[in-house]
Amino acid sequence: MLFHVEMTVNLPHDMTPAQADQLKAREKQIAQGLQRDGVWRHLWRIAGRYANVSIFDVADNAALHDTLMTLPLFPYMDIVVRPLCRHASSIHGDDR
Amino acid sequence: MLFHVEMTVNLPHDMTPAQADQLKAREKQIAQGLQRDGVWRHLWRIAGRYANVSIFDVADNAALHDTLMTLPLFPYMDIVVRPLCRHASSIHGDDR
Amino acid sequence: MLFHVEMTVNLPHDMTPAQADQLKAREKQIAQGLQRDGVWRHLWRIAGRYANVSIFDVADNAALHDTLMTLPLFPYMDIVVRPLCRHASSIHGDDR
Amino acid sequence: MLFHVEMTVNLPHDMTPAQADQLKAREKQIAQGLQRDGVWRHLWRIAGRYANVSIFDVADNAALHDTLMTLPLFPYMDIVVRPLCRHASSIHGDDR
Amino acid sequence: MLFHVEMTVNLPHDMTPAQADQLKAREKQIAQGLQRDGVWRHLWRIAGRYANVSIFDVADNAALHDTLMTLPLFPYMDIVVRPLCRHASSIHGDDR
Amino acid sequence: MLFHVEMTVNLPHDMTPAQADQLKAREKQIAQGLQRDGVWRHLWRIAGRYANVSIFDVADNAALHDTLMTLPLFPYMDIVVRPLCRHASSIHGDDR
Amino acid sequence: MLFHVEMTVNLPHDMTPAQADQLKAREKQIAQGLQRDGVWRHLWRIAGRYANVSIFDVADNAALHDTLMTLPLFPYMDIVVRPLCRHASSIHGDDR
Amino acid sequence: MLFHVEMTVNLPHDMTPAQADQLKAREKQIAQGLQRDGVWRHLWRIAGRYANVSIFDVADNAALHDTLMTLPLFPYMDIVVRPLCRHASSIHGDDR
Amino acid sequence: MLFHVEMTVNLPHDMTPAQADQLKAREKQIAQGLQRDGVWRHLWRIAGRYANVSIFDVADNAALHDTLMTLPLFPYMDIVVRPLCRHASSIHGDDR
Amino acid sequence: MLFHVEMTVNLPHDMTPAQADQLKAREKQIAQGLQRDGVWRHLWRIAGRYANVSIFDVADNAALHDTLMTLPLFPYMDIVVRPLCRHASSIHGDDR
Repeated sequence: MLFHVEMTVNLPHDMTPAQADQLKAREKQIAQGLQRDGVWRHLWRIAGRYANVSIFDVADNAALHDTLMTLPLFPYMDIVVRPLCRHASSIHGDDR
Repeated sequence: MLFHVEMTVNLPHDMTPAQADQLKAREKQIAQGLQRDGVWRHLWRIAGRYANVSIFDVADNAALHDTLMTLPLFPYMDIVVRPLCRHASSIHGDDR
Repeated sequence: MLFHVEMTVNLPHDMTPAQADQLKAREKQIAQGLQRDGVWRHLWRIAGRYANVSIFDVADNAALHDTLMTLPLFPYMDIVVRPLCRHASSIHGDDR
Repeated sequence: MLFHVEMTVNLPHDMTPAQADQLKAREKQIAQGLQRDGVWRHLWRIAGRYANVSIFDVADNAALHDTLMTLPLFPYMDIVVRPLCRHASSIHGDDR
Repeated sequence: MLFHVEMTVNLPHDMTPAQADQLKAREKQIAQGLQRDGVWRHLWRIAGRYANVSIFDVADNAALHDTLMTLPLFPYMDIVVRPLCRHASSIHGDDR
Repeated sequence: MLFHVEMTVNLPHDMTPAQADQLKAREKQIAQGLQRDGVWRHLWRIAGRYANVSIFDVADNAALHDTLMTLPLFPYMDIVVRPLCRHASSIHGDDR
Repeated sequence: MLFHVEMTVNLPHDMTPAQADQLKAREKQIAQGLQRDGVWRHLWRIAGRYANVSIFDVADNAALHDTLMTLPLFPYMDIVVRPLCRHASSIHGDDR
Repeated sequence: MLFHVEMTVNLPHDMTPAQADQLKAREKQIAQGLQRDGVWRHLWRIAGRYANVSIFDVADNAALHDTLMTLPLFPYMDIVVRPLCRHASSIHGDDR
Repeated sequence: MLFHVEMTVNLPHDMTPAQADQLKAREKQIAQGLQRDGVWRHLWRIAGRYANVSIFDVADNAALHDTLMTLPLFPYMDIVVRPLCRHASSIHGDDR
Repeated sequence: MLFHVEMTVNLPHDMTPAQADQLKAREKQIAQGLQRDGVWRHLWRIAGRYANVSIFDVADNAALHDTLMTLPLFPYMDIVVRPLCRHASSIHGDDR
């Protein structure tokens, strides 16, 4: 089941570069694992912003929440979640 | 090149059902053509709203605009466009 | 799976009372059927507004959308949907 | 009498994990007590956000305020309160 | 129990002056009755706007909603309701 | 002359409890003096928020500003002021 | 006493040019009378918009409201009123 | 002197195609004249919207307003104007 | 040429009173000089807020920007600028 | 291909003047390089604000993002990007 998840990152200015890099490295590692699992189906950068638009494919709302809570950047992100579903005009039988 | 396009449809209440159905039929026909061409890469319904989130793959901004202008529902839609690009944490080499 | 659905109704001023009453009667009939089915788990009036807060229990996003599309007032409503899940501090094992 | 209470938590980034955990533990303890008392009737997590939607059943506005003021997280929360009442289309005689 | 109710009136431009005057006359009549009953405790005009700030003293949320639904201008008003209660710094023992 | 004044308090998280309590004590003292003088005519708590709705009765705009500037919490408050006047449908001859 | 009044005019598209011109002529006549009386102290056009920023000098809130209600364009205007007073850094002894 | 002018066009749905085309033709004619005069220095389409971002080079605010008032689409446009000036980091000596 | 400039001041809470007073003293000194020069034509306090509405009379946009940049409080202010011009209904031949 | 990029700078108040000056110097150096390369086609100051409106001419979205990421002020800027294209009423054959 698909969710449209928009994440905007606001790292505190007084976080040291080392802390930030470490945080981002762990975030990338987890994000790539979730992508390989097919959970994080799409991850796009919004050009010009420290933000992304992602499409998650999860079993249900709780799975989505638990997944997002594993992200190291979670405490520094403003996240907006909207449920998606197959559009009646889609040429695909499923929710691609 | 990818664009995140959110379309919210507001049909006037005094439009007759017949007019609306005809408009939607032409919209669906054009939308499905664009999907087959690979231009309209993703088309998802936002659950609960007469709105969709779409990912367009076009040559450039002008191509995007010209494409959206062909949609019969264009005059009745509020459209927000944001440029996307490959995310540094994506496991894909391209912008899937 | 639960969704928080807020519906604000804006009937056009030039709709006749008879049309409006007929629309509301059909809406009530469908809404009560969905409540009996356990789909429309909670339906509360926001005091002072022609709006409600509802909790829907559905299989997935598509089921939610299809359900809301059956509502006669759908074309006249602004609907905001947010996915809910069990809170870690809830005393209930499920998502009551 | 029911109130729809939406709480969004913003803990300061410079709060130590220990302080935060202690605060959350006390919050959970109080929240569960209020749930057992039937005051905090529903507590749902908004998927993807450090926020919840809750339904409080209290005697009046003052009781609601006093109850919310007992929450350890109160100083760190943005709270929006809206009064609810039984909907004319509800199949329940009361405000479930 | 007190509620802060802000009402902004938007009469359709194509309503005839006679209809509008009749509507306002009935509104005034009902509003003054509610004031005499002590339900509509304060009614102030927001200078420069076709809007008012009112303080309602009612038994509960349902009473508030039912009261507001009796207002002829209800369909033409945007209403925002917020629950009030006695302030800890008030010199009054009650909620004046 | 009446003004509707809405005050939302945002104390900095790094203010010590002692500082905060002292500030609030001075605020309460001044607020109660202004109430006894009839300047601060109404002071209500917005349930669930560290905010109040107040009605000030002052000679003019300058008097309102000077009065609000005496409040110890002024630097920590977001204040919105709107001028009120007697409503044509009020049953009172004055601006109660 | 001064008020900052911002007026944005939205004439209905189906108003005939003749009606609109007549309305504007009456508006101009009344506006110029109020300026000569010193009530409407400043009237400036916001470049590029059918809107103005005005400074009214009136006895009190009620006088402001009554004055604005005399404007033929009142039903077609969105008006925002804010009370002004002499600034402590003004070189003028009064509120010029 | 430069102004950033953003124009969003909202033609009424009940305007006939013939009226709309005539309006747009006159708009294009005037817009191209202003461009040739160097007044309308830049005119860009915001991709996906019936809106443009324009840079006007005019003598002063009044000239800007008078120019925009000549546009046939003016009554149907929401216009936001912001004054621009040469940026300290520009490599140009003037305000290109 | 006139500009409507609204300035809202947000001094950081951890600025010492001495620093703040020194900053305000320099601001007042510069502001009064600009008023005497006729650049800062009007300076009014928005009652109840640490904000002002000002009317600047400058040669052009660049002059406005350079002037505002001289204000010691500039880094702590949110400033909104809108170009004004003489209103067609003004009784003055110039832009008073 | 053109993008409209609006950048608003918010430097933390506790950044030392030396740090800020160094940051701005590097920003200016990079910005001027990009202008000479024709990438940063226009750079205008929004009068009265620490913000600019810029027009970037880049190959695609990714190039835009990578370019903006090279700006030293990037972490301190709120950036809004909108895709532009040639307007049908432009007298230019290209996207000037």
